[in-house]
Amino acid sequence: MQAFNDLADFSNEEINALLELANRLDVSPEPTALRGKVLSLLFLNPSLRTLASFQAAMTRLGGGSFVISPDMSIHGLETRPGIVMDGTAAEHIREAVPVIASYGDAIGIRAFAERKNLATDLAETEFNSLTDLIETPYINMESAMNHPCQNLADWKTLDDLGIPANGGKFVLSWAYHPNALPLAVPSSTLYMAAKRGMDVTVLRPEGFALPDSIMEKAGAAAAASGGSIRESEDRAEAMEDAQIIYAKSWSSTTAYGDKNGDRELRKGLESWCVDDDWFENAASDCRFMHCLPVRRGVVVSEAVLDGPRSVVIHEARNRMLGQMAVLHQMLGSGS
Amino acid sequence: MQAFNDLADFSNEEINALLELANRLDVSPEPTALRGKVLSLLFLNPSLRTLASFQAAMTRLGGGSFVISPDMSIHGLETRPGIVMDGTAAEHIREAVPVIASYGDAIGIRAFAERKNLATDLAETEFNSLTDLIETPYINMESAMNHPCQNLADWKTLDDLGIPANGGKFVLSWAYHPNALPLAVPSSTLYMAAKRGMDVTVLRPEGFALPDSIMEKAGAAAAASGGSIRESEDRAEAMEDAQIIYAKSWSSTTAYGDKNGDRELRKGLESWCVDDDWFENAASDCRFMHCLPVRRGVVVSEAVLDGPRSVVIHEARNRMLGQMAVLHQMLGSGS
Amino acid sequence: MQAFNDLADFSNEEINALLELANRLDVSPEPTALRGKVLSLLFLNPSLRTLASFQAAMTRLGGGSFVISPDMSIHGLETRPGIVMDGTAAEHIREAVPVIASYGDAIGIRAFAERKNLATDLAETEFNSLTDLIETPYINMESAMNHPCQNLADWKTLDDLGIPANGGKFVLSWAYHPNALPLAVPSSTLYMAAKRGMDVTVLRPEGFALPDSIMEKAGAAAAASGGSIRESEDRAEAMEDAQIIYAKSWSSTTAYGDKNGDRELRKGLESWCVDDDWFENAASDCRFMHCLPVRRGVVVSEAVLDGPRSVVIHEARNRMLGQMAVLHQMLGSGS
Repeated sequence: MQAFNDLADFSNEEINALLELANRLDVSPEPTALRGKVLSLLFLNPSLRTLASFQAAMTRLGGGSFVISPDMSIHGLETRPGIVMDGTAAEHIREAVPVIASYGDAIGIRAFAERKNLATDLAETEFNSLTDLIETPYINMESAMNHPCQNLADWKTLDDLGIPANGGKFVLSWAYHPNALPLAVPSSTLYMAAKRGMDVTVLRPEGFALPDSIMEKAGAAAAASGGSIRESEDRAEAMEDAQIIYAKSWSSTTAYGDKNGDRELRKGLESWCVDDDWFENAASDCRFMHCLPVRRGVVVSEAVLDGPRSVVIHEARNRMLGQMAVLHQMLGSGS
Repeated sequence: MQAFNDLADFSNEEINALLELANRLDVSPEPTALRGKVLSLLFLNPSLRTLASFQAAMTRLGGGSFVISPDMSIHGLETRPGIVMDGTAAEHIREAVPVIASYGDAIGIRAFAERKNLATDLAETEFNSLTDLIETPYINMESAMNHPCQNLADWKTLDDLGIPANGGKFVLSWAYHPNALPLAVPSSTLYMAAKRGMDVTVLRPEGFALPDSIMEKAGAAAAASGGSIRESEDRAEAMEDAQIIYAKSWSSTTAYGDKNGDRELRKGLESWCVDDDWFENAASDCRFMHCLPVRRGVVVSEAVLDGPRSVVIHEARNRMLGQMAVLHQMLGSGS
Repeated sequence: MQAFNDLADFSNEEINALLELANRLDVSPEPTALRGKVLSLLFLNPSLRTLASFQAAMTRLGGGSFVISPDMSIHGLETRPGIVMDGTAAEHIREAVPVIASYGDAIGIRAFAERKNLATDLAETEFNSLTDLIETPYINMESAMNHPCQNLADWKTLDDLGIPANGGKFVLSWAYHPNALPLAVPSSTLYMAAKRGMDVTVLRPEGFALPDSIMEKAGAAAAASGGSIRESEDRAEAMEDAQIIYAKSWSSTTAYGDKNGDRELRKGLESWCVDDDWFENAASDCRFMHCLPVRRGVVVSEAVLDGPRSVVIHEARNRMLGQMAVLHQMLGSGS
């Protein structure tokens, strides 16, 4: 495997094979599989789960990793092309990224969306500008529109819960948050659920529809897998018979990159906090999913998050297991 | 071993077995004992020795670790229960702690006392609120009143120095410091020395007596082991025939959580800086112990700290060896 | 090997043996060579390449490392001797360095020049004050005047490029930079090239001559190896037939430690930015070397840095390989 960048690059069979491997590694450790192998971890944005789970994954397979993150003194990395570096930044990504990559057998890169221009972010301009600099195998640890490690973990979680691939009812719901958050998780989660073949409803208020190209990509995946996607602003209708509600806040797409416009749009939407009453029409064992971190009492009520519907810790642990499978395929002796 | 939280949870035989293991691992490395095992390290307060020695300990046993610390971008962790998270904190410990624990085979947690209310801190309210969230084996890396890894290292240091368990004379002395420091080290060191069976004197000025419950817990341990404890404000009397002076500054217990009251009480106590003249009545080979970090010229004079009495570096290295024994028992094949 | 501090401590045969080992480890990994071994990494100054490459090197050899750096809460380390520590610093290097060293089988230390007094820095006063505190084997990760890991990597790069040891033409050129930078890289690079037996020209403007003692040390090495050194302010003459231009900015030596005086001296020297026209008289395949980080458009033009002459990423990767050889000799079974 040369890159783990987007679930769309893999067939459903390949994803199922990864998840079988993840399950096998969970019960049958392989503590020498990646002996002497190094994973470079480059975070241009902060992290907790990704930071911890990748380090743990490499250790469990007998290898190791190192972390370069914005919290560290990395001289201030310059990203603009063609710049005269006479300011504070002492190093350009054109050197830093290939150098960091050269110390590892693979590199994980996290680079969030700039969130200035939607077309630029949809084109993955920034993330691609980084991976264009390297020839090492790489893993997308969250880019403008993708978060494949989260998607793989969530797919596994749906399997673990016995939610059927075809016929399973999955609601992806926008939730309130004081800030405008990236589109990577909602966009790639929609794609994951569609590709898995589920019946997916995107529940969101006006102004928060996902971009057309994202909806189209997911629609094509749904069609190929026997699933479906639709959008709704009506909570009761969307939640009918739902087996999963996957909550996430995201920025407005009509006021993308416009802080004030976005704030105006989310004004009065505080009731988009997933609470017990959301589940009235849902399947009785409907579960609550979220990628974390999550704001209690804002995105979801304490009652739901601490109650039996919540599988957020299970999802987070699956991050490590899914990544172990990816690393094993990417760096193991059979790779 | 499910938890290493308090020396009081272990018999003297169990502690001696841990220290025998520590000695064995020092001379006979076992670089594959914890192959593929992961220790999660969660620091809610800063660290140098603990941070370094736990990472080194896991590597020496063939495993690995990862660190989550307040220096890193962990979104600002919210700790209050029942809060609506509409401020700056993006994640609650109720998610963060179980997630971090889920990536490891064991977790080490450091969470200092809040130092607002003595009863709350004596009850280990904050530390217990963290360990209540997890089912993984855990290690206390310093809580409000406990620092068992330091205690184990110090017990080993006393053994290494040939200080007798019964009949050994141990002085725990308050020392001056510009700031009010936690009670974890003095409280748990007193308990360690008492449990080891030594004759322990707590030397401290007025207002700095250790809490009653701490004195009682240590007294019971001393009685069971054939040791004794007493308190004194008289340096010359306390130091008579002392074989060990263990210096540490700590906050006032009468003005606990009251910054100004504490400052008032420590005013004029600058002479509580351990210097050569403290040793006039002591045993000729009386040693100086301290858990570090220590302020030179404030807590202890340069002459004493750089002289032959000081065993502080020896103590610090024993941190690693003791922790290797704990990790080996907690995570090794015989665990 | 007890210390890797200065290329001058090794014969050319010993250096060639290290580089043979580095080449062997590159093609024939030894993922258990340093099983259970620990490298302590102490950074008193920031780092990217050194931080990443040492961690990767230890992992590749089956051991591990831990990092203590100024970005972390290390209580503020006090370095002054004989000080009463009643300010903000909570720990003195006299405890911190031996403790950190005691957890490792070897320690890497980075401590830049103070850049107040040239004689003090030439004497390596600060770095020696740290290594005097320990008995563990140590590696200089950049001190006031030395950067032996960079020098070893650069020597290997010259070998890899097929640049002859005797007769090879090496130009070390001062370059513009808005700030006064340390002398460690230019001083030790000059020594490396001279010791390798090359014909070395130091190209620099007035006020930026390297210190006499540095020139003399390099001159003696050149004489012993059949090489030569000379200085020039004339770019065209210096670059004639050059096979390597090694660019680096450094502080003025006539206004050393004098920020304003240095700024005055570098005023108007912006044309000391290596660009295509510098290569007019050079050998046709003349290469561009730099230790990184480098400021684009300031020290070197984008055209040169992104063009075929540049070998800066190759140099950086050689950091890891050279260090693997050093660690293998220092900590391996044959050490």
